[in-house]
Amino acid sequence: PDWIIYRSARNESLKQNSQVTIYVSRTATKTVSEFEYDAPSMKTAVPGPKSQELMRQLGEIQNVGAVHFFCNYEESRGNYLVDVDGNRMLDVYTQISSIPIGYNHPALIKVMTNPNNVSAFVNRPALGILPPENFPDKLFESLLSIAPSGMSRVQTMACGSCSNENAFKSMFIWYRNKERGYASPSEQEVGTCMINQSPGCPDLSILSFMGAFHGRTMGCLAATHSKAIHKLDIPSFDWPIAPFPKLQYPLEEFVRENAQEEARCLEEVEDLIVKWRQKGRPVAGIVIEPIQAEGGDNHASPDFFSKLRNIARKHGCAFHVDEVQTGGGTTGKFWAHENWGLDDPADVVSFSKKLLTGGYYHRDELQPDKPYRIFNTWMGDPSKNLFLSEVLNVIRRENLLEEVTRSGKALLQGLYALQTQYPHILSRARGQGTFCAIDACNDATRDSIMLKARNKGLFMGSCGEKTIRFRPALVFKEYHVHQLLNILNNILAEHK
Amino acid sequence: PDWIIYRSARNESLKQNSQVTIYVSRTATKTVSEFEYDAPSMKTAVPGPKSQELMRQLGEIQNVGAVHFFCNYEESRGNYLVDVDGNRMLDVYTQISSIPIGYNHPALIKVMTNPNNVSAFVNRPALGILPPENFPDKLFESLLSIAPSGMSRVQTMACGSCSNENAFKSMFIWYRNKERGYASPSEQEVGTCMINQSPGCPDLSILSFMGAFHGRTMGCLAATHSKAIHKLDIPSFDWPIAPFPKLQYPLEEFVRENAQEEARCLEEVEDLIVKWRQKGRPVAGIVIEPIQAEGGDNHASPDFFSKLRNIARKHGCAFHVDEVQTGGGTTGKFWAHENWGLDDPADVVSFSKKLLTGGYYHRDELQPDKPYRIFNTWMGDPSKNLFLSEVLNVIRRENLLEEVTRSGKALLQGLYALQTQYPHILSRARGQGTFCAIDACNDATRDSIMLKARNKGLFMGSCGEKTIRFRPALVFKEYHVHQLLNILNNILAEHK
Repeated sequence: PDWIIYRSARNESLKQNSQVTIYVSRTATKTVSEFEYDAPSMKTAVPGPKSQELMRQLGEIQNVGAVHFFCNYEESRGNYLVDVDGNRMLDVYTQISSIPIGYNHPALIKVMTNPNNVSAFVNRPALGILPPENFPDKLFESLLSIAPSGMSRVQTMACGSCSNENAFKSMFIWYRNKERGYASPSEQEVGTCMINQSPGCPDLSILSFMGAFHGRTMGCLAATHSKAIHKLDIPSFDWPIAPFPKLQYPLEEFVRENAQEEARCLEEVEDLIVKWRQKGRPVAGIVIEPIQAEGGDNHASPDFFSKLRNIARKHGCAFHVDEVQTGGGTTGKFWAHENWGLDDPADVVSFSKKLLTGGYYHRDELQPDKPYRIFNTWMGDPSKNLFLSEVLNVIRRENLLEEVTRSGKALLQGLYALQTQYPHILSRARGQGTFCAIDACNDATRDSIMLKARNKGLFMGSCGEKTIRFRPALVFKEYHVHQLLNILNNILAEHK
Repeated sequence: PDWIIYRSARNESLKQNSQVTIYVSRTATKTVSEFEYDAPSMKTAVPGPKSQELMRQLGEIQNVGAVHFFCNYEESRGNYLVDVDGNRMLDVYTQISSIPIGYNHPALIKVMTNPNNVSAFVNRPALGILPPENFPDKLFESLLSIAPSGMSRVQTMACGSCSNENAFKSMFIWYRNKERGYASPSEQEVGTCMINQSPGCPDLSILSFMGAFHGRTMGCLAATHSKAIHKLDIPSFDWPIAPFPKLQYPLEEFVRENAQEEARCLEEVEDLIVKWRQKGRPVAGIVIEPIQAEGGDNHASPDFFSKLRNIARKHGCAFHVDEVQTGGGTTGKFWAHENWGLDDPADVVSFSKKLLTGGYYHRDELQPDKPYRIFNTWMGDPSKNLFLSEVLNVIRRENLLEEVTRSGKALLQGLYALQTQYPHILSRARGQGTFCAIDACNDATRDSIMLKARNKGLFMGSCGEKTIRFRPALVFKEYHVHQLLNILNNILAEHK
């Protein structure tokens, strides 16, 4: 396809002068101007010499095997990440999908420089016992303004793992309260829980799916099944693991086959719930991602999720939708589960990453009956809520969900075109909004494409066994889609 | 005892004018002036009407049973916490021991208003893959400048629970690598770990102590045994739990009895290690607090810890010292374990709270052999490292560890005097630095004293069954000690 080449001749001179330019989006419904670069610009192979020297230094302190390169965050702007060697890359991985509106967004810098906000950064409160005056207001104007359907309660936490751990705990507490008819716990329960024994610490389980990723603390990790490197050598729980549908793409072309596969998985879910109840480890909750991310960008249909939600209800299990990676607008809706069209999509919805604070929403019944059952020192960080409020303002003001839908369509169309042109290399293009992915023929080819792309100024992520995942910020426009496709196309054309 | 009354007549007029005064410490070795109030000042009972209204609002979103009152952090200064009803309290609980140098310290405000730091707040990186340029430098000048003896490696994390969870994981990985002779894992291990089964997810354990608190995520919670409300209804692991010495205070007066009690506990530790090995759940690590905090401020002698460390070494278990609450200078040393006088005090030391970032130090051998084994999206937060660097500068510049030692001595002497004067109410005064505690005769009396004190402008914490814990900031001076003792004395004199 004839991708328009945007790489500008002005590039070099610009860099030497101001490093920043005002760019007017070609495709936005209104004129959006922002501080951003206009294209990638590469000086060295990545990692360059400065990154390599810093890796050596950091290697004396930590395992640096996962470090790609060192960044100059001061000079990064919008969709462009600048490294310490002066390389400027179009970033469609965005710190593992956690930068909502690009680097150094002027609106966020304003939050920082507003003197009224200083105290929120300097005095981190123990939110569970001594919240700041504006805490309820800030929750209403940020997290509650985007609450999933049916949920008016939210608990902030520091990160995604803590959010899921505490969501699990809420489900266990809710389940046991139901079981004991909301009576006080027995003396035996109170006594045995102190020494990790049943009935105080009951043999309850969380049902999760093969390929799932819910975090790496020990509770979350017991529900995570994406890669061995995450789990090897860590003790775990005997919890049931259901198959996640392995669908064929594009979904529209394999409706019948995919429906069969989903039915098979749902049947297995019910079997496991019954089996684990019989084993004496009843399933208190089911946890699932709307799109399995780390596990390889695996999708399922709204029908699958709707039926799964009904199975949870039928068997008295809580239904926990983990939106840590899918939440925050990247699928074109604020929550990926909104695509299911359900009034009552979940009992618990957890988040982190693009929301800048971790946490989870839950239905009223999932609120712990007593204080200090869900608790820790900080319980989140109000300074992150300040940033989130402003991110939501920007999303609304700049119609970023529409933008994501538009860019996502262009991105997916482009990926379809690429896999048509290079069928021996690429397959299974898929996505929702800009939350897109494509498979390479094997992991070595995937890794090679990614390294070549990085050296040409396109920084992407991987997931699953041989998948490239695209996780751009919400300010990723059609202009950037074309840049991305252009670079990928050049690499694939040269690929042996 | 004749506590000097410091409450100043200037109080009212000051409040109406500037709300802030410059105070010159009566006892500091050099003249230290800082922005602080000079005394508590109470307008209403606590919680006042504004706090109650905000509790009602927040109650629609969260369980507020643990909320004491709502705070005006903007107006809080140094050791004084101001609430939304205009009450100003001497705060010796400091957000569950997590405010290192008092509220709104000018040095921290400078960090915030320094334009060079904006980017670190606005662009939160995924530290494990894309660290900022100054990350190694910042680690060297902050965390590594205070590294415990024998440790040159540190991993930051978001909170105390995540720190301990990942420390546990490091110990499991280290232990299994030893067991398999540093060979690659077998296919069976790689396969079984994906479905939570042994040998991939091995039956290893962490030995912890009754009364311990190590956090509330599911791994940490299995090593926590302080209160039933933390643990009830949450599934757990079958891990060994040793008795923590129940010592008599003052320690100097019960040397022989205490040594016997410690010997009993150490013997039990060895028995449990052997027993759990025989059970097929070998102990990979021992975790302990230098002073059990949440569990009731329980101390043990340097001799106990030294012998425990040797037991760990003898049986091939890693030794993890949890300094989440004790670390950061409050015991008069930067780390409480420095009081043991060992060259090789631990294999892992975890921290959070006053350090502002979570994390853990570890010996070289505890570094995971591969990347992505200890990993998450954020792996800490560089903006917290910036604050920590400045906190360490202030501690050094203002000799705060000496200050803590001096204030702590005055505080403990005062508590001794109070328990001598009110032996029917108070007993077991104990402490190291300002990390002090005293027991009431029962929990109702403890709670009543705490509420009365709060209404008189002294905000304290509780722990254990009937203990009051003192956790002031490092800027707590003898001047404040006398204020505290004065208020407590007034309450006790009136106590029936």
